[in-house]
Amino acid sequence: MIDLLIEKIKQTKNPSVVGLDTCVDYLPQEMQDKISSLSDVCDALTEFNKNIVDNICDIVPAVKVQVAYYEMYGVYGMQAFQNTLQYAKSKGMVTIADIKRNDIGSTASAYSRAYLGKSSFCGMEVTPFASDFITVNGYLGTDGIKPFIDDAKQYDKGAFILVKTSNPSSGDLQNKKLQNGNTVFEEMATFVKEWGKDLVGKYGYSDVGAVVGATHKAEAEVLRKKFPSLFFLVPGYGAQGATAEDVSVNFDKNGLGAIVNSSRGILCAYKKDKYTGKNYYQAARKASLDMKDDLTKYINL
Amino acid sequence: MIDLLIEKIKQTKNPSVVGLDTCVDYLPQEMQDKISSLSDVCDALTEFNKNIVDNICDIVPAVKVQVAYYEMYGVYGMQAFQNTLQYAKSKGMVTIADIKRNDIGSTASAYSRAYLGKSSFCGMEVTPFASDFITVNGYLGTDGIKPFIDDAKQYDKGAFILVKTSNPSSGDLQNKKLQNGNTVFEEMATFVKEWGKDLVGKYGYSDVGAVVGATHKAEAEVLRKKFPSLFFLVPGYGAQGATAEDVSVNFDKNGLGAIVNSSRGILCAYKKDKYTGKNYYQAARKASLDMKDDLTKYINL
Repeated sequence: MIDLLIEKIKQTKNPSVVGLDTCVDYLPQEMQDKISSLSDVCDALTEFNKNIVDNICDIVPAVKVQVAYYEMYGVYGMQAFQNTLQYAKSKGMVTIADIKRNDIGSTASAYSRAYLGKSSFCGMEVTPFASDFITVNGYLGTDGIKPFIDDAKQYDKGAFILVKTSNPSSGDLQNKKLQNGNTVFEEMATFVKEWGKDLVGKYGYSDVGAVVGATHKAEAEVLRKKFPSLFFLVPGYGAQGATAEDVSVNFDKNGLGAIVNSSRGILCAYKKDKYTGKNYYQAARKASLDMKDDLTKYINL
Repeated sequence: MIDLLIEKIKQTKNPSVVGLDTCVDYLPQEMQDKISSLSDVCDALTEFNKNIVDNICDIVPAVKVQVAYYEMYGVYGMQAFQNTLQYAKSKGMVTIADIKRNDIGSTASAYSRAYLGKSSFCGMEVTPFASDFITVNGYLGTDGIKPFIDDAKQYDKGAFILVKTSNPSSGDLQNKKLQNGNTVFEEMATFVKEWGKDLVGKYGYSDVGAVVGATHKAEAEVLRKKFPSLFFLVPGYGAQGATAEDVSVNFDKNGLGAIVNSSRGILCAYKKDKYTGKNYYQAARKASLDMKDDLTKYINL
């Protein structure tokens, strides 16, 4: 699946992913005014996301859908999450379910069936929240990751494991030094490399990649150098404060090796003076193009 | 909320929690035979769990509902998850949503609103998957945990943070030694103590506790000694291999300080020769009583 993502990036000449972290507050007032039940929330989030997808699918390779913003509306939110993943896929986009799931092996296997593999029961088979990639937290170690890797292999999917996250406190644990000389995040990256070593595709990157926050440039530089087979999912650009120059260190000399996420910067572009006169999806398209131009000033793709 | 859990443990003289990790395979064949859609799955899981709850709510203080086993059936599974939490609460049980969620602050806040706090939008307020406690993965550090702690304080709820998990590979990262002399799991426990220091109740335990696997006795002994204010949620008894003697090290001299989970051992008790002649919920009740007897051989409650 990493090969397909890279091909989409090359085709669009755009190493970015739009984060559909859509909550009701992000919707235009006229859409909010029509909401009077959780069922309406499902319809509104789905409509908003579909219009964004329709207006970016030819210029952006992938969407990242953050499940927390849907879980907070209960089963109706989860229905909108599912609708969004399905629709983006139907429009040819690569889909990343940002779920950060983690558990012991048997339970991780249940999560993996929900997103990557298949749930089988009573003669039926379903993958309710089918995604091309998921994000995973690796704190539990190898046997908690194996079900995801096995399904990535069997169903041509992928996973990004949290290595160095974009939040200000990520160093609390992740930057602590181990007695073997590695920081915790370098140790995690070492595991990720091992977990994905049999899934390296034709561009030299593995289906098992790493989440590396754009807001920690020094750490990203270390990781890019030490782990050439790891493809990075890079959050933190834009609303969280990282610039295009900051994120450029995540890329290899061919302009590959990373994909940069922006969520609020795209979804809420219509609220900015810069995009006055455009509706939310026209503004999202223009903001996506502006982001592409900004990133590719520093990246030779 | 930890005080209520401790009072329920004292009242039932039972330091155990039943894990409702209910998947279709665990249901009696006659229930499986009636399933021909995901909607049927929702009904069957809900019915099974309600019958278990009805038959244990007077003898067991709490249930732990593992969301992965519901997510794998999509929105219908999530509806059964919600039904189960609501029903167990209505029968006076303490509810633990085993979700192991984690993210940067703004996103963690969305998760927290789904389980502990409230989602507000368009004049409405909902807590779709309302739970007394949740489990959380602390790899992201302080600002990713803060929304859960804030809601625990505001709404009298609690959280158990993964410290030393029960799976065989948990030591991959968790047992690595840091340069400050702590293992990673001891370092995590140190954070957990700090995060919950303002939420210590009348029994000396905090609303912010730790997940400590029963399968790692030596580590549990260290943690019990070094962190007297942390209440432990202890998975790994029974099907995962730990004995009552193994788990006894998680308790203080008053028989408090921990609650031990069993899932398959209770839900699938009806399949064991020992419980022949009983239906699934009668077997679950008897297995719960047997577990209580087993645990209290080693714990003075």
